[in-house]
Amino acid sequence: MPFTCLLLVVNLLFLWGYSGAVRGRTKIAINPEDAAQFGGELRDSDPPEVARVLRAHRNAESAIYPFLLLGLVYVLIGGGLKLASALFAIFVAARYAHSFTYLKALQPWRTISFLIGGLAMIALLLDIAWLLLSR
Amino acid sequence: MPFTCLLLVVNLLFLWGYSGAVRGRTKIAINPEDAAQFGGELRDSDPPEVARVLRAHRNAESAIYPFLLLGLVYVLIGGGLKLASALFAIFVAARYAHSFTYLKALQPWRTISFLIGGLAMIALLLDIAWLLLSR
Amino acid sequence: MPFTCLLLVVNLLFLWGYSGAVRGRTKIAINPEDAAQFGGELRDSDPPEVARVLRAHRNAESAIYPFLLLGLVYVLIGGGLKLASALFAIFVAARYAHSFTYLKALQPWRTISFLIGGLAMIALLLDIAWLLLSR
Repeated sequence: MPFTCLLLVVNLLFLWGYSGAVRGRTKIAINPEDAAQFGGELRDSDPPEVARVLRAHRNAESAIYPFLLLGLVYVLIGGGLKLASALFAIFVAARYAHSFTYLKALQPWRTISFLIGGLAMIALLLDIAWLLLSR
Repeated sequence: MPFTCLLLVVNLLFLWGYSGAVRGRTKIAINPEDAAQFGGELRDSDPPEVARVLRAHRNAESAIYPFLLLGLVYVLIGGGLKLASALFAIFVAARYAHSFTYLKALQPWRTISFLIGGLAMIALLLDIAWLLLSR
Repeated sequence: MPFTCLLLVVNLLFLWGYSGAVRGRTKIAINPEDAAQFGGELRDSDPPEVARVLRAHRNAESAIYPFLLLGLVYVLIGGGLKLASALFAIFVAARYAHSFTYLKALQPWRTISFLIGGLAMIALLLDIAWLLLSR
């Protein structure tokens, strides 16, 4: 669980940092004070290449935070580690694959990795529901 | 607390999944590779019916994650379960009502459910502050 | 750790609530049912002053949730409290400074506070990686 959490947080921080790096390369600023301080062109919204990274980041947030909350609940209510370890590993691999395929615009691999991650999440959810209801 | 967390995560995952389902029905793609792979019209931004679900999802994220973090802190510092259980139940009910009324565009019920959830959050926050300061 | 979490959640909730307050002042509604119920002009997107607060909020979310997850992992794997307390205090101060400088459009102070918070996060991340790998 700690290692899973670490890897997923690194995934999130990489995507977030990468969105900043791509924005920096495009020389487009959203805040007037940024254009004044660092130069660059002022615009209302991010260019497409930045928007793509931000969508990948948003998707990662929407999947990873719920999964980590479920993982925490699973551990707190004393769920067995054997099944959980497998689900954790599948989810981490699927999310890394999702981030990679989103940034590289690779379909249908992005959708496949998304669905695998989603199935791992649903399996964990059902497992918790089962544990809570069978106590 | 585990049950509260489970219900709130289900709320988040439902809204997120529902935004994808609505987007699929509109046949509008944001990523060029999605339009190429699955068909549909390519656009710069989501249509209004998808944007509504995403706003409901964003609102749920902005409320639920802080609440769960506060709930975790409350349990970790040994807060009593009687008051907490009531606040947890009120918050869960208010957030489900908020999601429902957001998707159905029902006012003033959305604002009322938002305020009830907000009051439960503030009550938990003040309770924690009291516990931390009176130790 | 509980106090750190409380302060960072207050930071998030303040930015979120403030975005609502600024939107209320602009009398611009995004949802048709809000314009019908409370009056105000209906528009497709938030005006610049609201968008600024929302960007500050998004930035705070993207930094604070990963940091709190890392902090939780650090405590769970038995990391020492001396270094952690210093990193927690630096991060909290840097994030409050970031929120303030974002809302006030103060550069280069926003970037400086962002980088200090980022360094505290990276230090915590490396510390956890070190603890996990040296066990």
